[in-house]
Amino acid sequence: MPSFTVFKGSEDGAPKKSITCKPDMLLGDTVLVRITASGLCGTDLHYKNKDMVLGHEGVGIVEGVGPNVQYLQAGDRVGWGYETDSCGLCKYCLRGEEIFCPKRAIYGSSNLDQGSFASYGIWREAFLHPIPDSLSDEAAAPLQCGGATVFTCLHDAGADETIGIMGVGGLGHLAMQFAAKMGCRVVVISGSERKREQAMKLGAHRFISMAEGIQELEEDWRLTRLLVTTSAQPTWGAILPLMASKSTIYPLSVASSNLQIPYMPLILQGIAIQGSLVATRAVHRAMLRFAALHNVEPIIERFPMSEAGIKEAMDKLEEGKVFYRAVLIPQQV
Amino acid sequence: MPSFTVFKGSEDGAPKKSITCKPDMLLGDTVLVRITASGLCGTDLHYKNKDMVLGHEGVGIVEGVGPNVQYLQAGDRVGWGYETDSCGLCKYCLRGEEIFCPKRAIYGSSNLDQGSFASYGIWREAFLHPIPDSLSDEAAAPLQCGGATVFTCLHDAGADETIGIMGVGGLGHLAMQFAAKMGCRVVVISGSERKREQAMKLGAHRFISMAEGIQELEEDWRLTRLLVTTSAQPTWGAILPLMASKSTIYPLSVASSNLQIPYMPLILQGIAIQGSLVATRAVHRAMLRFAALHNVEPIIERFPMSEAGIKEAMDKLEEGKVFYRAVLIPQQV
Repeated sequence: MPSFTVFKGSEDGAPKKSITCKPDMLLGDTVLVRITASGLCGTDLHYKNKDMVLGHEGVGIVEGVGPNVQYLQAGDRVGWGYETDSCGLCKYCLRGEEIFCPKRAIYGSSNLDQGSFASYGIWREAFLHPIPDSLSDEAAAPLQCGGATVFTCLHDAGADETIGIMGVGGLGHLAMQFAAKMGCRVVVISGSERKREQAMKLGAHRFISMAEGIQELEEDWRLTRLLVTTSAQPTWGAILPLMASKSTIYPLSVASSNLQIPYMPLILQGIAIQGSLVATRAVHRAMLRFAALHNVEPIIERFPMSEAGIKEAMDKLEEGKVFYRAVLIPQQV
Repeated sequence: MPSFTVFKGSEDGAPKKSITCKPDMLLGDTVLVRITASGLCGTDLHYKNKDMVLGHEGVGIVEGVGPNVQYLQAGDRVGWGYETDSCGLCKYCLRGEEIFCPKRAIYGSSNLDQGSFASYGIWREAFLHPIPDSLSDEAAAPLQCGGATVFTCLHDAGADETIGIMGVGGLGHLAMQFAAKMGCRVVVISGSERKREQAMKLGAHRFISMAEGIQELEEDWRLTRLLVTTSAQPTWGAILPLMASKSTIYPLSVASSNLQIPYMPLILQGIAIQGSLVATRAVHRAMLRFAALHNVEPIIERFPMSEAGIKEAMDKLEEGKVFYRAVLIPQQV
């Protein structure tokens, strides 16, 4: 197998099938993974016009290992996400915060000839995460970025916290499961009533429809953390009355505009706006263990991993019609 | 003494002498304090047109105690600041975060017939802070709000942190002393070169003049915390290149406008914007102990506590001509 199939962004935004060459031998601690499932993340849409392999929620089976690989072996199931390498030597790496390594390899700016919309991937063992047995490949794929992104904002929450989750989509529907299984109070905030039932099923204790108008919450139900998982930034002023003092807002949308938020309420209530980017590897693995133990699973919609299948999934995601995470399944060869 | 002298805001913004009635007996845990010094804080300017007693950086000597006072006695030196009461029963109070108590009594909204621009004050023992012997009354006064406000953003800094302090004024000149004495790297950012020498004397290791244009800092000198102590919000986009990943910005200005800041750098670098309001009582007292041990003292300019003296100090502060904290000294009766 001198090459493998990949799907790239293109000028017209439709994914294009291509190939990436495979080295004759696996070097160092690299691992050859046969991809069995890939999630589709909102971030992929931002790169649909770029000449790079798309996809960063990969799951697959190890087929080969380089000479310095330490514990992975053929047949193991692994996943990877937004970050696939770091220097290992800077202060962020030394602290286990490699996601902030200045030399980090992240989706969209490194390893552009590889991605999870592909038949194979070759990645460093250090950035591959073993998948617990009870998680299927399809279920594990959306956890590799979406799951990691919300779990990192939640994993150190106290038992008496009230977690707000704004947006019931790929990230939000995972966040509410995680928060509920952590024992926190869970308040879901959505644009309309439409997703109330689904949110309550996934662990929400309360559901607020923005269309109905936001009312102040009683003290114990004011949000100690708010994860904003909507695709665009919300109207921040409308949300602040829901926040508890000493609470934290995690804006997880990807947006090119400025953040604009009323200023004095932040000061008078000691509110923090905490920028957050996926998860460190340690937290990523904790997330997978937690999901396996508590049966946290994405609700997925399957699409074939083909030019047409990926395009259909991307179009649907762009239109807000994926409930709640698209997963691409490679076709049998 | 059936009443005492106070100085209030007024329609024309000039402080007006008035009186506040004193109860015949001190009740509960209240303490009668003869005021010996008061700091003048930027926040006082915001209330200069309001019919309320001004001042919230008070220091004085206990002259009488109510029946339930536990440890203060006549002759003790005490200070108080922005918060003078809380419910003691809510979850914030129970956690020692009484500054966020929903029933908190804070300057400008409670106890409007009392303040530190006065000959006396009557306050609850629970919100009076003993002044260490080595701090003079004049030096201790500006610490009661200005000192507490910056110390609370610094007191849990790690030894390897780089602290940025933007603005060399009442708050900034205290913050750089605290940060330097904590052993942190200290970077001072100011509008021009004018205050370079002063900043270096007060503990800065580096000085950046915004007028010269901001250059990126080397990795170890990128700011892990930034205290923005300017009187108005800065241009946030100009500052972000100075921040380290996983750093925290403390906006301490009082401003009615929105916070507007570039959005994606917050996410990609995991930067937090942390609203912060003076200090809890525990941190306030830690601040006084720290200042006493390390000779952290404000550089003050004295004004007589009279209508004319207060007006002169307020005008000078408004014009940015106080270096670095005005202190009002009551006149001998």
